Amino acid sequence: MTKWLDNDTLHQDVVVSSRTRIARNLTNYTFPLYMSVGESDKLTDDILNSMKENYMSWNFKFVRIRDLTPRERLSYIEEHLISPDLVQKIDKSSFLLRDDEKVTIMINEEDHLRIQTLLPGLNLTDCWELCSNIDDCLESELEFAFREDLGYLTACPTNVGTGLRASVMLHLPCLTMAGNINSLVEALRKVGLTIRGIYGEGSEAIGNLYQISNQTTLGETEEEIIDKLNKIITQVVTRERNTRKYLLENKGLELEDRLFRSYGILSNCRLINSKEAMNHLSNVKLAYDAHLLNDEKFDKIIELMIKIRPATIQKDCNKDMDQEERDKIRANIIRDYFLDMEG
Amino acid sequence: MTKWLDNDTLHQDVVVSSRTRIARNLTNYTFPLYMSVGESDKLTDDILNSMKENYMSWNFKFVRIRDLTPRERLSYIEEHLISPDLVQKIDKSSFLLRDDEKVTIMINEEDHLRIQTLLPGLNLTDCWELCSNIDDCLESELEFAFREDLGYLTACPTNVGTGLRASVMLHLPCLTMAGNINSLVEALRKVGLTIRGIYGEGSEAIGNLYQISNQTTLGETEEEIIDKLNKIITQVVTRERNTRKYLLENKGLELEDRLFRSYGILSNCRLINSKEAMNHLSNVKLAYDAHLLNDEKFDKIIELMIKIRPATIQKDCNKDMDQEERDKIRANIIRDYFLDMEG
Repeated sequence: MTKWLDNDTLHQDVVVSSRTRIARNLTNYTFPLYMSVGESDKLTDDILNSMKENYMSWNFKFVRIRDLTPRERLSYIEEHLISPDLVQKIDKSSFLLRDDEKVTIMINEEDHLRIQTLLPGLNLTDCWELCSNIDDCLESELEFAFREDLGYLTACPTNVGTGLRASVMLHLPCLTMAGNINSLVEALRKVGLTIRGIYGEGSEAIGNLYQISNQTTLGETEEEIIDKLNKIITQVVTRERNTRKYLLENKGLELEDRLFRSYGILSNCRLINSKEAMNHLSNVKLAYDAHLLNDEKFDKIIELMIKIRPATIQKDCNKDMDQEERDKIRANIIRDYFLDMEG
Repeated sequence: MTKWLDNDTLHQDVVVSSRTRIARNLTNYTFPLYMSVGESDKLTDDILNSMKENYMSWNFKFVRIRDLTPRERLSYIEEHLISPDLVQKIDKSSFLLRDDEKVTIMINEEDHLRIQTLLPGLNLTDCWELCSNIDDCLESELEFAFREDLGYLTACPTNVGTGLRASVMLHLPCLTMAGNINSLVEALRKVGLTIRGIYGEGSEAIGNLYQISNQTTLGETEEEIIDKLNKIITQVVTRERNTRKYLLENKGLELEDRLFRSYGILSNCRLINSKEAMNHLSNVKLAYDAHLLNDEKFDKIIELMIKIRPATIQKDCNKDMDQEERDKIRANIIRDYFLDMEG
């Protein structure tokens, strides 16, 4: 299963994970989009050489995008280990992944370097500390593009300054049910934060999973960004919990009916597509977090959500499949998981 | 549970039950619609008196419609023990029900007497024989309106002649899924038979349950009517079985998925309305008949279908309930039944 999710975490009933990433560029190279394959290979070598001295002990593996099959590329994205943008420039991009999967250093995404750290639960401070340490080590060997007045320079102006994007993935089934997401979008926009669905097209939130992140990287220190996001997330967690409490107290039977039907369908289906499975798994996670289901293994539902994504299924089975075959394997994976629960 | 369903039966995988009923009228009385309450009470006394000598040993109970609560009336209808028309003239109508529930003698339905016999499975010959015996006994004491050229006279011309309607209740999930019901309607119409959904509004077949019956009562003997219906039903049973086989062989996984999802929903729901429950129970019955589910108790699904009808639930709980309360009790009844299955 997905390694980076291994940990005891804070607010796990609502917060799935915390992520920070910083964008950095080297002074001597043009931005990745305008780079030839030759130049990008040279940049990659420079970065790898700079790391040899410090990082071999950290157990990073180095992966070139061009060496991966399409389903392997998508599977890394589904596990949130690399960004979708990294696989756009197949010949120029690569990444370093730490063996605990909590750190990824992406080379030639939109910027020369993107350092990502990923931790389960609400852990933004640890995330940022880890990110900052790696940044310091890299900066001791490489010359980053930096201006006193602007901060770190980036390919897209929205990242100039700290180059920091901090984000938190949340499970918000009850705010979604109660129709409160639109007002949340508005409230977050006013404080410079943005919310979007995970995995869905556009703003659709499959599995009721959302990502909240900062929009501005300029004019605030990294610590201010992290601190503000932390405070707001704590408020959103409280709102989701209060809505759960309200729905359980006032519409308990309808809610239980909905959640247990999802449990029944997942325990018995023989074919299921990814979107439907995600939404039923969201209901089962809610049932577990609301103590309606008590088997402890249900706190691994998020890992199951990743395991049943289309590319990850194909990677794990080591073959390409059409949709019907994936839907069948997905149903089997889920049923096995649920039957083990009951055993 | 419903007593008349107790029996080993023929073609139980497709045929739920067989029913015959004959219409008879007494010469000295006007038809029920035009009768005063006083006259109808006198007619009822005449019939009861005529039966005293022969029938006390048969263990019939006598019930006046006006002595029943509305939910008791509906419950008798849901159990198929009386016709919906019998409760239209509340003050004039009554019935005699044999303790095995296989025979009902309705007084002042559309005609003075309607004798109904009801057996599980495909049993038209036994049904008719039982009906005919009771008819003979009654006729030995009462004077029935009869003309040599027309046969038995009835309130509605469609019953003149034998006064016999024979019908069979069938479970046709796969002919329904395959979209073959319309062509079946056409084919049956051409041989003087009619098919309609049970319980549904108009032609809608809730729970994939249909009733096929003869339309003509004139120009054929009782034996010819029974024989023809028997032959046609046997053909319909074969068509349903062949379609099941075809779907299992060619779309097995989709079919299994559909049936097991119904099983999962019924085992876990907390609220369910009557129509949804009937349709899922139809799927579970199909899964059992196709040997996908093997617990022997599933051959009682038809009884469960009756037990969860709105009026029967209220009769069994001995109180009136709003829809949400019924939906909750219905879900509990079904869950208990399904959990017992697994225990």
